[in-house]
Amino acid sequence: MKMATDAYSVVEISRRVQTGVDDSLEAARRALSVIARRERELNAWSHVASASDLIDASARTASGPLAGVPFGVKDIIDVAGMPTRCGSEACNTSPSQFDASCVALLRRAGAVPIGKTVTAEFAYMTPGPTRNPANRQHTPGGSSSGSAAAVAAGMVPMALGTQTGGSMIRPAAFCGVVGFKPSFGALGRDGTKIMCESLDVIGWYCADVADVARVAEVMLPDAPPPLYSTEHMRTVKIGFLPGNPGHVLEHAAQAALEDAKSALRDLSTIEPVPELTNPARFLEAHSVIMRYELARSLLPVASEHAAQLSRPLREAIDQGLEMPAQTYREMKAWQNTQRLCWADYFGDADVVLTSSALGPAPRGLESTGTAAFNKAWSLLGWPCIHLPTALSEDGLPVGVQLVGKPGTDRELIGWALALHKFVDRRSRAHP
Amino acid sequence: MKMATDAYSVVEISRRVQTGVDDSLEAARRALSVIARRERELNAWSHVASASDLIDASARTASGPLAGVPFGVKDIIDVAGMPTRCGSEACNTSPSQFDASCVALLRRAGAVPIGKTVTAEFAYMTPGPTRNPANRQHTPGGSSSGSAAAVAAGMVPMALGTQTGGSMIRPAAFCGVVGFKPSFGALGRDGTKIMCESLDVIGWYCADVADVARVAEVMLPDAPPPLYSTEHMRTVKIGFLPGNPGHVLEHAAQAALEDAKSALRDLSTIEPVPELTNPARFLEAHSVIMRYELARSLLPVASEHAAQLSRPLREAIDQGLEMPAQTYREMKAWQNTQRLCWADYFGDADVVLTSSALGPAPRGLESTGTAAFNKAWSLLGWPCIHLPTALSEDGLPVGVQLVGKPGTDRELIGWALALHKFVDRRSRAHP
Repeated sequence: MKMATDAYSVVEISRRVQTGVDDSLEAARRALSVIARRERELNAWSHVASASDLIDASARTASGPLAGVPFGVKDIIDVAGMPTRCGSEACNTSPSQFDASCVALLRRAGAVPIGKTVTAEFAYMTPGPTRNPANRQHTPGGSSSGSAAAVAAGMVPMALGTQTGGSMIRPAAFCGVVGFKPSFGALGRDGTKIMCESLDVIGWYCADVADVARVAEVMLPDAPPPLYSTEHMRTVKIGFLPGNPGHVLEHAAQAALEDAKSALRDLSTIEPVPELTNPARFLEAHSVIMRYELARSLLPVASEHAAQLSRPLREAIDQGLEMPAQTYREMKAWQNTQRLCWADYFGDADVVLTSSALGPAPRGLESTGTAAFNKAWSLLGWPCIHLPTALSEDGLPVGVQLVGKPGTDRELIGWALALHKFVDRRSRAHP
Repeated sequence: MKMATDAYSVVEISRRVQTGVDDSLEAARRALSVIARRERELNAWSHVASASDLIDASARTASGPLAGVPFGVKDIIDVAGMPTRCGSEACNTSPSQFDASCVALLRRAGAVPIGKTVTAEFAYMTPGPTRNPANRQHTPGGSSSGSAAAVAAGMVPMALGTQTGGSMIRPAAFCGVVGFKPSFGALGRDGTKIMCESLDVIGWYCADVADVARVAEVMLPDAPPPLYSTEHMRTVKIGFLPGNPGHVLEHAAQAALEDAKSALRDLSTIEPVPELTNPARFLEAHSVIMRYELARSLLPVASEHAAQLSRPLREAIDQGLEMPAQTYREMKAWQNTQRLCWADYFGDADVVLTSSALGPAPRGLESTGTAAFNKAWSLLGWPCIHLPTALSEDGLPVGVQLVGKPGTDRELIGWALALHKFVDRRSRAHP
């Protein structure tokens, strides 16, 4: 799988198209062929473009920094000519007239949307049919299930997802791909179904950090993410956050985190940072804000198609509608103040190294796993990146999460790019 | 017109339906009849429901605090079964599957969406065909042109609009209705076309403040806006902000502001407050943020249908795409800090009394007028309400604006409710 993703990277595809080695449809055709071969066992897609759709699309997008790069789009984000189903029978199948803003940015850079990827029902908790490419008996995580699985399976070199709680980082961890969640507000959400206006962030998956960085050049304009040297690495201050109160990491996740810490100790300054004070308050605030906002965003659907919604989603909507607005406003105010508190928590740390998930992907498809390791960062709106680093004894991916200061998205990607090779143990044989 | 609006208020309609005096379709039928009579001369609507559509809609919504209240919806906000055209030929005419979140909240409270009102092209500057009900040779303002005109003409007792720069308050001022723009973030925007994610706010128009307050009970839940007594009014501290640097108020607007100040001086504490420091910075920051974000929201449209966009909009999109992201980020950071600065600017003032517009609606339909008196408040995201108070010598509406502290939407409506009758001179004959 490593070789397949190497040969199929964002950087490589765009280079080959730009230099005329490949035509702009070559990678898209290849994507369709891998999808044709593996989709039946993985169920990563809710809609795939036809070959003739792609010819039309690529005729308009033969150049640009992402020339010829096929990508998947979580099915709560509009793509012109494709339906947006939100993982629910309640949504109709009419094609969208326009791309979402984020899709249009990618298309303008030469990338080619290949299809819509499976999402948990309305990006909440009820899973779709996607299976984990590393082991089909295990969940790929959610809610951006199809996007993470499609990249992990080498179907596409890049896919868009979103995170409200842990919907970007958790699937990246479970599927073993790089997942990047930008700072809250870094990317406009027009054309994306917004579940929770105070929480939702659009991000992307790639097989490696260099590809994430290339996409960032389009999505987060200005200078590209910095290329940090070994000299630079000696200057970075990494805060180490070993755990998550109330959760004991499973062995494989704990080992991945400790291994990363050991590897980085010789290169950079790495020091423990205190846990977030009052962690239960983070989870409570996240829950209040999510339910209050989700209930209002989904009220139009629940009013008309309640019977087509899963019971957990209906219950969340009911709870959100009954929640006192005063409670919501207090939590929103608290959220807004916490967003400014990096220095209070982590001092002068440039990034924080912590775990992405409790452990490898749990067995079974009925749950997407816990987002307890992600919700605080979602509430804070700080940028996060998951780096796959190892496989568990069962061959399931594990890795670590780097969290950055608000607004330092480019720097976070730059540090991830510099650090990943030192912490990545996947090429070594597992003992 | 005053009598017509009295007989046709939100409060009165819902009372009559709730007590069984009228059936839940009576007011909607009446709305259709007024629209049929006046629409040809006013062009306030881009889509109007048929009588049979309404029978279906009202069958589901016969009770609630807004039972039977017909309302108009700015045509960038989705209503199930109606197209969303955004004031542009570029948008197709397929009906939306779902209501926007704000429409669903109103429908759940018993209100009945009657149709879509004319918006300036994508809520930017190029006007639609709507005329000012007070004088058809004059602009109704924009971009929420049809919503303000429809309420002013007595077609509907309430209509939804949005504000990015001055798109709620300016049409209220020009058409002579009450317009309320909540605090930024008070209402979720799912199902509304977002032009500028950092600026756009959904608001509503009614003929009087009591109706605005009733709608607020549904839109901004918790306790209803407070009913302030004359005793309370002695305690309110009103800051008086006479002008807007760089603009000299026209006579009628100046007189309205001075009259309001005089009327309130005997009732409350009213004291001058300093002008916003560095006002040009507010306008510059607004312009940068608006163009940067609008360009990305409208990129999908501009990529496919550039020829169908007006030249000013195409130019704004081009400018936004070329703008350095660093400039945008700096202005966003400045915006975020300014939003917290009420006390620095206005001390312990509860509300600020200021002008809503340069003067009455300008003659002609080719421009919607200047938003210079609104952009700072949009940038700050502070709640605003326009109160119509008088007619100019030419019979055109003028009034005043009250601005509230961030998050005090209910109190602002409460003060407006208490103060309006003391400043409203419309029932007196003009000298």
